[in-house]
Amino acid sequence: MTVRGLPMAVPAPGLPTRVRIHEVGARDGLQNEKSTVPTAVKAEFVHRLAEAGLTTIEATSFVHPKWVPQLADAEQLFPLLSGLPVELPVLVPNERGLDRALALGARRVAVFASATESFAKANLNRTVDESLAMFHPVVERAKAGGVHVRGYLSMCFGDPWEGAVPVPQVVRVCRALIDMGCDELSLGDTIGVATPGHVEELLTALGEEGIPVSALGVHFHDTYGQALANTLAALRHGVTTVDASAGGLGGCPFAKSATGNLATEDLVWMLTGLGIDTGVDLGRLVATSVWMAGRLGRPSPSRTVRALSHEDAEGQEGREAHKEQ
Amino acid sequence: MTVRGLPMAVPAPGLPTRVRIHEVGARDGLQNEKSTVPTAVKAEFVHRLAEAGLTTIEATSFVHPKWVPQLADAEQLFPLLSGLPVELPVLVPNERGLDRALALGARRVAVFASATESFAKANLNRTVDESLAMFHPVVERAKAGGVHVRGYLSMCFGDPWEGAVPVPQVVRVCRALIDMGCDELSLGDTIGVATPGHVEELLTALGEEGIPVSALGVHFHDTYGQALANTLAALRHGVTTVDASAGGLGGCPFAKSATGNLATEDLVWMLTGLGIDTGVDLGRLVATSVWMAGRLGRPSPSRTVRALSHEDAEGQEGREAHKEQ
Repeated sequence: MTVRGLPMAVPAPGLPTRVRIHEVGARDGLQNEKSTVPTAVKAEFVHRLAEAGLTTIEATSFVHPKWVPQLADAEQLFPLLSGLPVELPVLVPNERGLDRALALGARRVAVFASATESFAKANLNRTVDESLAMFHPVVERAKAGGVHVRGYLSMCFGDPWEGAVPVPQVVRVCRALIDMGCDELSLGDTIGVATPGHVEELLTALGEEGIPVSALGVHFHDTYGQALANTLAALRHGVTTVDASAGGLGGCPFAKSATGNLATEDLVWMLTGLGIDTGVDLGRLVATSVWMAGRLGRPSPSRTVRALSHEDAEGQEGREAHKEQ
Repeated sequence: MTVRGLPMAVPAPGLPTRVRIHEVGARDGLQNEKSTVPTAVKAEFVHRLAEAGLTTIEATSFVHPKWVPQLADAEQLFPLLSGLPVELPVLVPNERGLDRALALGARRVAVFASATESFAKANLNRTVDESLAMFHPVVERAKAGGVHVRGYLSMCFGDPWEGAVPVPQVVRVCRALIDMGCDELSLGDTIGVATPGHVEELLTALGEEGIPVSALGVHFHDTYGQALANTLAALRHGVTTVDASAGGLGGCPFAKSATGNLATEDLVWMLTGLGIDTGVDLGRLVATSVWMAGRLGRPSPSRTVRALSHEDAEGQEGREAHKEQ
């Protein structure tokens, strides 16, 4: 896979010089795929992602296997990743999940809250406050053990049942997660309806609430194609942690339950073009996603993956296709 | 097709309040489709686009039918659009094309230049300066007749043969087109490799050259998923004319010669979310693109079209699919 010296790096004023990509393909991606991927393939996937230069790779989830059968092999997978020189956060829904993660030596965990009552009920069968109460001892015990805690917050912009989500409602749950001890938050646009002004409004409100931008990550979905524009707005606001999924995994636009994860490759293309350092080798990452697409038996929905793998196969012929008249 | 009150309109500071969408689906889109669409279907398409609220709809091209057989019916199509209360620009490559357009009463024409020698040679079989010389009498005669002239400029950011295109090289051709009498320019990222900093750099350089931003339109391709982020950068710079293709026509990501036109629906979603007026009814536009996709026998590559038509078909079931654990 070659990139032919493009994109050219042209920094834009007021943006960070480095961004940390929180890679979610192996967890958020694979848990939303219809087929269950063999443990060995998952392990190779994470190893390849690390070799491509990603430094934070969410590895798996310690929810009950009944709820996420795709990740039921967490106990088998996690030891296969030991020794990798990267951060390997894992999801933990409750104390039982935390126990399982800690027993395997996890040093980063994540809880997942909702900004709306409808989604808290649908996803956790609890009210927002009941779910926060469930997370409280999880975060407390993790922090006591020196474990880094991320707090995911779903439905920060819109909710499929409730429509637009009021900013103060999101700020309240962010405040609770920070007060509980979360080291960082991931602001999720779970259904992909955010637009750049809405992103700026939420980030401004969180700043006014006294939550430092260094504690904020953004997690945009490309359901309506808005993820990169929203990311650009967040970068302008000083955000330096961006979630993305290699190859757009979990966001297959052809699947019925498309979630539309932002593809890491599309993100890396933009950041590289902006002269922002990510440490990621785009060619190796694309090769990894093409390989993974082969395992899943369907093409990657990432436009960058498609364009670069297509071009690699076509060469001169691809260039000829650009004729306009 | 319903949008359920989303996206919520949240204006961002420093952006225009109104944007004119230059719809290119019927020309740039259909000329890049493999199959030739019947004239009556093209006419219905343009009528539907106008009913959806688009006000500038590029209708067809008066290049020699040998080069673009998909649009060989320009003489038959154009009269079917008379009476529509919208602007209907058409492409004219040379004086012969201008004669044909003027004979049918066209009031807006467009010439198409290249910022690079390689593409000028590939697309027009001329050097850049030879092609400018060819356009000179076309623009002069059009202007003398009170006809509005747009100058397309391809390969403004990267070129498949030459890689990154130096900004001064682009500025030189823009200057020549403006001096020739073009009323507006369309800055084309023909292979989709631009990123937001590069966009800002070019727009800044054109401003320093004395070309008013009101004379500039942007034409981004989504080949690498960057079109909306680039559009956002252009809006921040004051650009208020944005080219897009209904349903992403001409940019089918599955086709070998994918050009990756920005889908009008993805653009309208972002602009609506930013509180920017376009006059477009998104639901009617999506319905039009779904209808056109049916005529072409393949799904639209627009994420917004997919999401909204999918949701329309699914309803509650679609909402249930958003469960995360």
